[in-house]
Amino acid sequence: MSETCNPSREGVIEAAREIAAILPPTPLLPVEIGDIRCWVKAENLQPIGAFKIRGGWHRLSNLTDDEKARGVVAVSSGNHAQGVAWAARRLGIKATIVMPRDAPQVKLDATRALGAEIVLYNRPGENRDEVAAGIIAETGAVLVHAFADPWVIEGQGSAGIEIAQQLGCEPSRIVACCGGGGLAAGLSLACPDAEIVPVEPVGWDMVGQALKAGKVVRAADDAPKTICDALQPPATAEINLWVLQDRSEPGIAVTDEEVREAQRFAFSKLQLVLEPGGAAALAAALAGKVQLDGNTVIMLTGGNTDAESFARTITAKRSHAG
Amino acid sequence: MSETCNPSREGVIEAAREIAAILPPTPLLPVEIGDIRCWVKAENLQPIGAFKIRGGWHRLSNLTDDEKARGVVAVSSGNHAQGVAWAARRLGIKATIVMPRDAPQVKLDATRALGAEIVLYNRPGENRDEVAAGIIAETGAVLVHAFADPWVIEGQGSAGIEIAQQLGCEPSRIVACCGGGGLAAGLSLACPDAEIVPVEPVGWDMVGQALKAGKVVRAADDAPKTICDALQPPATAEINLWVLQDRSEPGIAVTDEEVREAQRFAFSKLQLVLEPGGAAALAAALAGKVQLDGNTVIMLTGGNTDAESFARTITAKRSHAG
Repeated sequence: MSETCNPSREGVIEAAREIAAILPPTPLLPVEIGDIRCWVKAENLQPIGAFKIRGGWHRLSNLTDDEKARGVVAVSSGNHAQGVAWAARRLGIKATIVMPRDAPQVKLDATRALGAEIVLYNRPGENRDEVAAGIIAETGAVLVHAFADPWVIEGQGSAGIEIAQQLGCEPSRIVACCGGGGLAAGLSLACPDAEIVPVEPVGWDMVGQALKAGKVVRAADDAPKTICDALQPPATAEINLWVLQDRSEPGIAVTDEEVREAQRFAFSKLQLVLEPGGAAALAAALAGKVQLDGNTVIMLTGGNTDAESFARTITAKRSHAG
Repeated sequence: MSETCNPSREGVIEAAREIAAILPPTPLLPVEIGDIRCWVKAENLQPIGAFKIRGGWHRLSNLTDDEKARGVVAVSSGNHAQGVAWAARRLGIKATIVMPRDAPQVKLDATRALGAEIVLYNRPGENRDEVAAGIIAETGAVLVHAFADPWVIEGQGSAGIEIAQQLGCEPSRIVACCGGGGLAAGLSLACPDAEIVPVEPVGWDMVGQALKAGKVVRAADDAPKTICDALQPPATAEINLWVLQDRSEPGIAVTDEEVREAQRFAFSKLQLVLEPGGAAALAAALAGKVQLDGNTVIMLTGGNTDAESFARTITAKRSHAG
């Protein structure tokens, strides 16, 4: 990170070095979409089943000894929770995770199995940030934000360094599932010449809306439901907007049915398990919503999904409505 | 291959070189089983969803021009079919595949989509080798046997060369799903110092039985049903037994329920789709039937499975009977 506490390309490169020391690179696999042979980056194959292990590790491993002793708090629907819990266990740091009561059971179970303490809140209704603030006031723990954190942004960006190494050149375009914009921001620092295309659920395109408005925009109270539990932040943050402004494409929104179609494609053509939020970028590509070429990389960001909902998705007849 | 038409370590190394020129290495991923952190080789992530692309490519790309002009015939329940069809399409060779009528629909569809001509036979009842012999007599096509072929053995073995490169040393032990013994034989040539542990379905342990008897043994007419459609050859062959004799461990047999448990583990912990036959080696490891250490590699050999049966498997309650 730079001395001004802004995330930087140098910080991303340092994060990639740290992460390479403990985790093998995730595979970059060829995929044929229509007539185009491009690439998927299988971050669902990380030990916690999602890319969030990167930001969690870069943030926690760079805490001061005093901060480590105070412990960490994170707010997450599940994947950031596991990323922070995984890093905390390995570093011997106490982790408390504020999770929505309706988070997928597999994510709650996995976070608990990694030794983190879980505090549940009701979504909607309770303000998750206030719950976290209460814990911090009481314990002095350090907040590890899921996306509005320079270390976390740099950590997520390490995937872009790996991609460029695996491809042998910078990708032309990275299509990335996008919640708060931590990954998209990190990738834009990692690969300064690549086009960055954030993909969000319809109605939860808080990064896309912020990029258009030139300021942070909050999700509407009546925002539609989405199956992408990992991609529904109430808003992006200043730091993410600051990195992405003038760097990112306007952004693309995908429907639940497009996401399910992508999960089916990953199951039958790639032999990969993707959760809905982890399939959003692939959904945009399959739906023809994003340009593809031989150096385009599609991020597959997570695969933590309940067996029942995954079984329903893969056995459902393809909708012909849209 | 050596001049005596026997498969050799040099041939395996040559096959690995050829395959590296057209296919990226499949990932070697860390996995925790009990307290042991070992490795899985994710061959289900090959473009055809199975390791069989290796043997198909090494055999077909080394045919003479005359042989290429005559075309090839293969007998397969699906994965070897796709391996041969994939290589044939790329090399402009006509491929005819003899497949059982009860092969999984996804494998029939995928083989057809790769441009191969499919000839169906009834299992049991019709003799698949006779069906293939009839086609060869008529067309002069070259038989590409699924396992009893020195080129195919060498091709499959290329996975072992990749593993040693990825691990930075020869593995201590490779646990491999085993049908006719092509992969196990190839791996034993690739990694001469590794222990090779073939894993077969109960009642279809034709390699294990052959190793014990010191001669090829045919499956019993009343052999039990198995969900591992890819692992039920009527017998291993002399060439496979010749390579494996004195090299391989006695072999391990796994039950359908152990295989399903491995498919569930791969789904929830590894975010990978495995077909039953592709999960046999993992099943043996999870069931405690094979010793594990930090340099043990478990082959995940295929992921071509119908959505309906996969959905049933992952949503089934774990059996407590065994």
